[in-house]
This record gives sequence, C-alpha cells and structure tokens, in this order.
Amino acid sequence: MIGKNRLEAFSDGVFAIVITLLVLDVHLPIHVPPGQSLAHALGQLWPQYIAYAITFAQVGVIWLNHHRVFQQVKLVDGPLLLLNLNLLLWVALLPFPASVVADYLSEGGTNATTALALYGGAILVTAISFCALYLWLTHDDRLVVNLPPPDAVRKSRVRFMFGLGAYGVAFALSWVSAPLALSVHGAMALYYAFDQATLQQVPEPAG
Amino acid sequence: MIGKNRLEAFSDGVFAIVITLLVLDVHLPIHVPPGQSLAHALGQLWPQYIAYAITFAQVGVIWLNHHRVFQQVKLVDGPLLLLNLNLLLWVALLPFPASVVADYLSEGGTNATTALALYGGAILVTAISFCALYLWLTHDDRLVVNLPPPDAVRKSRVRFMFGLGAYGVAFALSWVSAPLALSVHGAMALYYAFDQATLQQVPEPAG
Amino acid sequence: MIGKNRLEAFSDGVFAIVITLLVLDVHLPIHVPPGQSLAHALGQLWPQYIAYAITFAQVGVIWLNHHRVFQQVKLVDGPLLLLNLNLLLWVALLPFPASVVADYLSEGGTNATTALALYGGAILVTAISFCALYLWLTHDDRLVVNLPPPDAVRKSRVRFMFGLGAYGVAFALSWVSAPLALSVHGAMALYYAFDQATLQQVPEPAG
Amino acid sequence: MIGKNRLEAFSDGVFAIVITLLVLDVHLPIHVPPGQSLAHALGQLWPQYIAYAITFAQVGVIWLNHHRVFQQVKLVDGPLLLLNLNLLLWVALLPFPASVVADYLSEGGTNATTALALYGGAILVTAISFCALYLWLTHDDRLVVNLPPPDAVRKSRVRFMFGLGAYGVAFALSWVSAPLALSVHGAMALYYAFDQATLQQVPEPAG
Repeated sequence: MIGKNRLEAFSDGVFAIVITLLVLDVHLPIHVPPGQSLAHALGQLWPQYIAYAITFAQVGVIWLNHHRVFQQVKLVDGPLLLLNLNLLLWVALLPFPASVVADYLSEGGTNATTALALYGGAILVTAISFCALYLWLTHDDRLVVNLPPPDAVRKSRVRFMFGLGAYGVAFALSWVSAPLALSVHGAMALYYAFDQATLQQVPEPAG
Repeated sequence: MIGKNRLEAFSDGVFAIVITLLVLDVHLPIHVPPGQSLAHALGQLWPQYIAYAITFAQVGVIWLNHHRVFQQVKLVDGPLLLLNLNLLLWVALLPFPASVVADYLSEGGTNATTALALYGGAILVTAISFCALYLWLTHDDRLVVNLPPPDAVRKSRVRFMFGLGAYGVAFALSWVSAPLALSVHGAMALYYAFDQATLQQVPEPAG
Repeated sequence: MIGKNRLEAFSDGVFAIVITLLVLDVHLPIHVPPGQSLAHALGQLWPQYIAYAITFAQVGVIWLNHHRVFQQVKLVDGPLLLLNLNLLLWVALLPFPASVVADYLSEGGTNATTALALYGGAILVTAISFCALYLWLTHDDRLVVNLPPPDAVRKSRVRFMFGLGAYGVAFALSWVSAPLALSVHGAMALYYAFDQATLQQVPEPAG
Repeated sequence: MIGKNRLEAFSDGVFAIVITLLVLDVHLPIHVPPGQSLAHALGQLWPQYIAYAITFAQVGVIWLNHHRVFQQVKLVDGPLLLLNLNLLLWVALLPFPASVVADYLSEGGTNATTALALYGGAILVTAISFCALYLWLTHDDRLVVNLPPPDAVRKSRVRFMFGLGAYGVAFALSWVSAPLALSVHGAMALYYAFDQATLQQVPEPAG
C-alpha cells in the first residue's frame, strides 16, 4: 500500500513542476530586429503574463487545498490513488490551455472565445476531479482521521459546490466575454488564496 | 550504500518530471490565422490527447508498481541500483515515442505503423526492465523483508509475464492496426490501474 | 495547516526546477552548416553563458537565504503561505528575463537596455517579495522560534535593505550601461554566496 | 545552517530534473512528409540516442557518487555549500553540450570535433568540480563522520585522479577521433556504474 507521504510527495512534485513549466509559455514569438522596439514587443505579451499569473495562482491554490484535504487522511486506498492520479492528469495538462489562451486572447473574436472555453473547461474538469476525490474521502470515516461533524462536512461540500458553480459560470462566460471569463478565473484564484490564508490562521492542536 | 529512501525519492522525482513533461508535446503546430477556426485545429490534436492520456496512465502505473515492489525492500545492493537506473533510462525516454505517435498517428499508413512500433517497443523494453528488476529482487531473500511464499512469488511472476506478453502483442499489433495496438496499450494501463486499486484495498498489517 | 516541512519541500522543488530549466535557454539559434565554424557559433553564445551563470547564482542564493530564514520558523500562517507563493511566482518567472537578456545583450543599443531593465526589474521585484516575507516573519515573535535580539533583527534588515538598494542601482544602471548593470547583478550574487559561506561556518547550537 | 538532508534533497532534485530533461533533445528535426520513411528518419537520430544514453549514465553515476560521498558527511559548512552549488551549475549545464553532440556528431569533420571537445570539456569541468568538493570534505575530520584511514583516503583520491585523467584523455581524443572520444566517455560511465555496483554490495555496519 502506498503510504500517504509518498502520495503527497509525488503530487507535490507534479504541482511544483507544472507551476514552474508555465514560464516556458512566456516568450517572444520571434527575435525583434535591432531597428524595432523590444519594449513594445514585450508589452504585446500581456496575454502571456495574465495566463502565467492566473494559472500559477490556480495551481498554487490546488496545492494548498490538496494539503489541507490530505492532512486529515489516515489511509490511502485504491480508489483514492486513482482519483488522485486523475486529478494530476488534469493539473499536469493545464499548461496547454494556458498557452492557448496566451496565444489567442489578444485576437478577440471566435478564436479568443474558443481559447477561453478550452481553458475554462480544463479548470472545470480539474475542479470536478478534486470534488470527486473529496467526496470519496468523506463518504465514510474509513480514510480520514476524524470525519468532521456532519455540519462541517456539509459546509465544506457547499464550499466545493460553490467553486464548481463559479468555474461553471466562468466557462459559460467564455461565450459572452473573454476578458470577463478570465476575470472570474483570476477572482476565484484570489478568493481561494485569501480564504485559505484566513483559515490557516486558526491554530490547530494536532497541527 | 544508498538507502532505499533516497532511491525511492530519486525515482519518484524522475517519474513526476516525466509525467509532467508529457504536456510539452500537446500543442498546436502553427498559429491558427484569425480567419480560421481554432476549435477545428484543437480538434485535430486528438492524437496528442490520446498519446498524453495513455502515456500518463502508463507512467502512473509504473510509479504505483514501483512503490508496491520497493515497499518490501530492506536492502539496496549494487545490481539493484543499476537495474533501477536502467528502468529510469527507459521511463525518461517515453516522452519521445509518445510525441512521435502524437505526430504520425493521424496520417495512417506506414509511418503510423512505424510510430506505433516505436512506442510499443519502448513500452516493451520498459516492461522488460521492470521485470529484470523484479526478478533480481525476488531471486532470494537477501533484499526483501519477507520473501512471499513461493506460491505468491509464482503468481506475481505470472502477472509480470502476462504483462510482458500483452505488451508484446501490442507491439506486434502495430503492423496490423495502429488504433488496435494503441487500444491494447490503453487497456493495459487501465487494467493495471484498477487491478492496483483492488489490491490496495487489502489492508496490510505492517503497512 | 500546511507544515513548514511541506512548504520548504515545495519551495525547494520550484527552486530546483527553475535552476535546471535555465539551461533550456542555452542553445544555438540555427544549425551551423557543415562549411562554417561551430566553434565560432558557440563563442557567439557568450551572452547566454553569462545569463545562465548569473541567474543560476541568483536562484542558488535565494535558495540558501530561503533556508536560513525558514530554519527559525516554527509556525506557518496564511499570510506567510501567500507571501511565499508570491515569491515563488517571481522566482519561477526568472528564466524569461534571463532568456531575453541572453538574446538581446550582444546587440547593444536600446533593446539591450530594455532587456537589462526587464531583468533588473524582475530581480528587484523578487527581492522585494523576499523582503516582504522576511518583514512579516519578524514583525513579532509568533512565527519564529526565537525572535533574535532587536539588534540582530535590525542588522539583518539593514542587510536586506542594502540588497534592495543594490538591486535598485543595478536596475537604474540598465539605462547607463548594460554590461555594468549585469556586473552588479553578478557581483551581488557572488557577494551573497560568499557572505552566506562565512555565516554558515559559525556553528549553531540548535542546528 | 542548511542541514545535510536539505542539501541532498535539493541536489537530488537537480539531478532528477537534468536526467529527465535530456529527452527533450531526442526529437525529429522536421515532420517527415507522408511519402517518406519515418523509420529511416528515426534511424538517422542515432547520435541523439547515443548522447542521451551516455549523458544519462554520467549524470546517474554523479548521483550515485554524490550520495556515497555525502553519506559520511556530518556537517555542512559554507565552502561545501558553494562547492556543491558549483557542481550543480556544471551538471545542470550538461544537456547543452549533449544536444550539441547530438546535432553535430554525424557530420564528422571540424564541427564534430568541436562538439566533442565542448562535451568533453564540460564533463571534465564537472569532474574537477566534484574533486574540489571531495578534497574539501576530506582535508580534515571536521565535516565527515569518520575520516577513513589515510590509506583509504589515498586510495579514493587515486580513484578520483584516475577519473580526471581519463576524462582529460577523452577531452584530448576529441581532436583525434570523435567516435573514440565518445567511446571513452561511455566506457567511463559504465566503469563507474559497475564499480559502484561492486562497492555497494559490501554491507556497511552503520548504513
């Protein structure tokens, strides 16, 4: 049986590599000739900077939530292993839709819509994968140290459902307005990051 | 003597990086001009999605099996180190045949056959490398905590041999039908993943 | 609550990946035809070698300082998590300005200035992010094992401020002389590396 | 003071990433058109396969030796930190000369010589960096658990010197014959790997 530590270490490795590979999609498409302005060309890369920052924040938030969830885990069973590999499959894919957004956002029109829909869809599937993992973990008290009281489980599930709903809205907004959809993605990452930060401040006895 | 923990940590690092580098081969070959459909171009990438998913599953399964096997190891000797480095050599190479499959699968014809044969050959050599490592580990009781009873060793060897046989069939099928060969690869990864899941559920006393 | 160990391990993973990805920007732009000199073409890559070496040193120094700072940490709270993710966001971005410097330094003129300013700006923001993290850690004695005596805290803050000042000077020097600005960056990395080395030799009781 | 564990973990991370990035230089230069043979094009990649295998073996051997050496370390001081970062600087650079060898070996002529000399030089500098680290570690008994008896230290230094000499010969052979120089590199990696394997089999009491 794979221990919880190895599962966390492997997942952390994947998260750290994904978050660092994102920079490979921040680059100038061609060498700017000496007579032309490099500063202008760098300014044109704004969709790449946005895609980098938002995706970095989202992977960072997934890492934070992954740890919070696994902190309570006492036993890793087979379905949990598969659900975790399924989550990593989608997280490791995120640099692809991020690069498509970086390349097509500034064009506007149908292709920017498609790029955002691809990105929103990938994030939504990632969130669904995380939810599936969380639901499996909390469906009885076999895998977690102390199944929280029903009230707390219900609250955390509501939080997850809220997240899914918001990512669904962001996905749908791709067809309305690419910048608006992207703003919702950015807002979600910030919301989870700061929400996380607040929660973290509550000291836990058995930390 | 390199401890088992460092060997596992190094191997896990390589597995995590390989599994995450696979995404670098999922990309659009050229920038789609504004007048043309990005959605259509993304749809054309289906061989890349398939190559990503199947190879991700196979590396994930190798990681799972690597842990299961090393869980019983108490001593790391020189041949084991070399056999493990040999396994990593082939696992770290997998993104190359995966990218060749992604690029040539949709063409059909001889080149698709060649791509699949390269992929199947790489997987087969990887499986042989894993078998060699396993046979070395279980050939006496010096390296493992409790050499399982002969019956269990025989059963696990049969499982390994079944795997080698199936990968050999997938390799041979490359010359018959590329989609069929790829299906066998996918089926093998799923089989091992779910088989793994079932096995993992059996609680072990000294987990 | 995410433990200090996991935060350090994740950060170390990002540092190790960033420092290793730098080599991807050391490469020949085109294949040198057989009739022409590869040695000459390799010699032309000197800006890439410089960018590699200086950025490697800077990420290495950040890794060293990150450890020295976290060694005293006993509690990880929410703001610390976010400040650390913010630091990683900028560190993980460094391969981008490094590659721009590598590509435009030898041209001289306005574009070399822009490249250096981008690099200097990225380093400066990274340094500011590190300072923010350090100021949060040391603003009271809640997060660190033993808040050093005020004198030592003051001295360490002066050191940080000196660093920020020097990086600010390097940033400003981009508009004066690209080689000079780069020299200051290199000197800073060496200064911190050797300063670090001296400090490290002082044995600590509770190491 | 950075603990030995963190130094080893960071170094292992860099080794694992370098060894896995090598596969990025194994790729087809252009898409083979449907009418032409993919198998033939894959066969043309033999210099890339050789560069991959030999460099993988060399980084693997450095990883093995790094562990053997650090196993005896009890204290990490400042110079050791810098000497280790210096070693990592050169190890992380190895994918660059490996890719140059992969691209120019089959051409023969002056450029193949240059490519091999670059590769041999990089390996030689890496070996010198490792020797410097080893000499610092063993120059007194402050940093290692038990300084081995003078006889053993002398023998291990002779081993290191033999390695430096052989890498120097391989470097010089670049100007005589590229295949011969490469063969010496491959032979050295195999020699160290099997030598390592033999040594590993001797059980150590305080493993």
